Amino acid sequence: MWPDRRLIELLGIEIPIVQAPMAGAQDWELVAAVSKAGGLGSLPCAMLAPEKVIEEAGKIRSVTDRPFNLNFFTHTPPRADNAREAAWRDRLAPYYREFGLDPNEPIKGAQRSPFDDKLCAAVEAVKPAVVSFHFGLPENSLLRRVKALGCKVLGCATTAAEARWLMERGADAIIAQGAEAGGHRGIFLNDQLAAQPGTFALVPQVVDAVKVPVIAAGGIADARGIAAAFALGASGVQIGTAFLHGPEAKISEPHRAALKEAKDDSTVLTNVITGRPARGILTRLIREQGPISDAVPEFPLAAAPLAPLRAKAEAQGSGDFSPLWAGQSTALGRAMPAGELVAKLAAETMERLRRLQA
Amino acid sequence: MWPDRRLIELLGIEIPIVQAPMAGAQDWELVAAVSKAGGLGSLPCAMLAPEKVIEEAGKIRSVTDRPFNLNFFTHTPPRADNAREAAWRDRLAPYYREFGLDPNEPIKGAQRSPFDDKLCAAVEAVKPAVVSFHFGLPENSLLRRVKALGCKVLGCATTAAEARWLMERGADAIIAQGAEAGGHRGIFLNDQLAAQPGTFALVPQVVDAVKVPVIAAGGIADARGIAAAFALGASGVQIGTAFLHGPEAKISEPHRAALKEAKDDSTVLTNVITGRPARGILTRLIREQGPISDAVPEFPLAAAPLAPLRAKAEAQGSGDFSPLWAGQSTALGRAMPAGELVAKLAAETMERLRRLQA
Repeated sequence: MWPDRRLIELLGIEIPIVQAPMAGAQDWELVAAVSKAGGLGSLPCAMLAPEKVIEEAGKIRSVTDRPFNLNFFTHTPPRADNAREAAWRDRLAPYYREFGLDPNEPIKGAQRSPFDDKLCAAVEAVKPAVVSFHFGLPENSLLRRVKALGCKVLGCATTAAEARWLMERGADAIIAQGAEAGGHRGIFLNDQLAAQPGTFALVPQVVDAVKVPVIAAGGIADARGIAAAFALGASGVQIGTAFLHGPEAKISEPHRAALKEAKDDSTVLTNVITGRPARGILTRLIREQGPISDAVPEFPLAAAPLAPLRAKAEAQGSGDFSPLWAGQSTALGRAMPAGELVAKLAAETMERLRRLQA
Repeated sequence: MWPDRRLIELLGIEIPIVQAPMAGAQDWELVAAVSKAGGLGSLPCAMLAPEKVIEEAGKIRSVTDRPFNLNFFTHTPPRADNAREAAWRDRLAPYYREFGLDPNEPIKGAQRSPFDDKLCAAVEAVKPAVVSFHFGLPENSLLRRVKALGCKVLGCATTAAEARWLMERGADAIIAQGAEAGGHRGIFLNDQLAAQPGTFALVPQVVDAVKVPVIAAGGIADARGIAAAFALGASGVQIGTAFLHGPEAKISEPHRAALKEAKDDSTVLTNVITGRPARGILTRLIREQGPISDAVPEFPLAAAPLAPLRAKAEAQGSGDFSPLWAGQSTALGRAMPAGELVAKLAAETMERLRRLQA
């Protein structure tokens, strides 16, 4: 028996493990595997067109009828700033030349769209059990449409103040994303990156700040972390990087290789890959242009000019220009199918909790 | 019963709570109170002359015969760099003028001394049960003298690599200091501050890296945190900021007031107060000159020119130029005598562990 069943009951799942949505690193297959095993699989939809969201959801349902989560970004679309974008391309021009690319070749636009009417219509078509949002919540009219479907809404907080903000606006549970977490920080109420709390400090303070269940995220990759999250007052955990070691992850070979080598201090928070701060393994690009730079265009416009460099580098087996998203507990992960991992983590957590008996 | 008794047995204590040494914020009184209650009190000796170390230890022993810890810094003494120090004073000159101070007045030298022959002689005179070091370990000849006394040696690691380094050189237990911790980061093997792991990620990876007991530090201030530390594999915890709320803390009124108001995101890592990165509540000085600056003199030389500003500001009730050291879980602390806090934390942790029973 889990010591706190609030999240399990809220979401209708059996194991309080939420698989973190990882845009660009997974598709429906990971979602289906985690949900089928009794956890909550999450489909990252920030880089998907509405019709693709519906298609992927159909594939999940072909495997399992258990609850799953559709995840969306809610960032403000960037204002075009030609001078800033040109300056960023100028900074990248030496890399283009190094790879024999034309620094002036046209680049594709940003691929990360915030939640809007069309994506909301896709949610209405899919009617998932759970919808989660990153970077705050969508505008009220959209949020009301999601809640009218009966979807449970998860919001992501990086501070206790953000957690209160999300709860007051209707989030049914709060993901408390500590600084250890891989990928984009959900930070949305301020830009004080240097003050972002770690998981150990954040979780109990979010628990004290809200009345809804709290999902601990950041640095959790094994049964010790899950047991610790419950000790801190969480009702469940969100795990991301640990699933990247497994066969369902759709990541580049350089990314997979870097994950195998990662240590506790292999990652940094950087904004040079997309324009927003995110945690990933240190690469040449981050070392030379960041980790934090004032020169990057607004999110997600920094990303597109990196795509040709990434493609060339990866073709040579290098992750120098790839987003090697990873959290600080990458080394605690194990390469196994996601469903097996969920079952194993659940069993090991039970054993861990038993041994903690005073 | 504590679920892991290795630290208790190693140190001869009853409650696996180490009080973090906090130079400039406490004296023997806090040490005596914590040790008397069954935890491990720690006397910060980095700013004490050898004879003062002996005197303070005598005061501790007048109250309790239980084990206590003498803590020392092991930094490399700074090389004098007149140009750099003058440039730092130039940066501070506008503040001097604002407070009606003469920017050219002579300043006292640095007050933080690394562990040396004389301080080692003081340890030999005191023969404490435990000695801990920050910023690595002292040179071999000094470390051998300490170990020859029968003292147990604690080393502070901010990464798994540092933990291994400390264990291989003779540390009997490792303090795993996560990024949430208040005060100076123990980082000594590299200067990759941006890559420093949080407590949640650090503790299990240190546990996996070493064979000696691990003491979790950073963001721990209540029973939830202590239970979580054991869940992560720690054999004990180190708690600092939580004791600053209590009557034994010797801190300024602005510091005490700022601690009462602190939230999860009120602190940052800064090097502008001493020259080495440390976590404290954001102040005007940090905002205007940092949080991290390339212009500061080498540790601890940045501190001395701030002393006159601090004195003037504090006299006006302001902490703008004070080191308001604090961790990210300051808000979880409770103002009570240290001995009562130790007893209460122990009882509450037992209860917390019981409730976690699956």
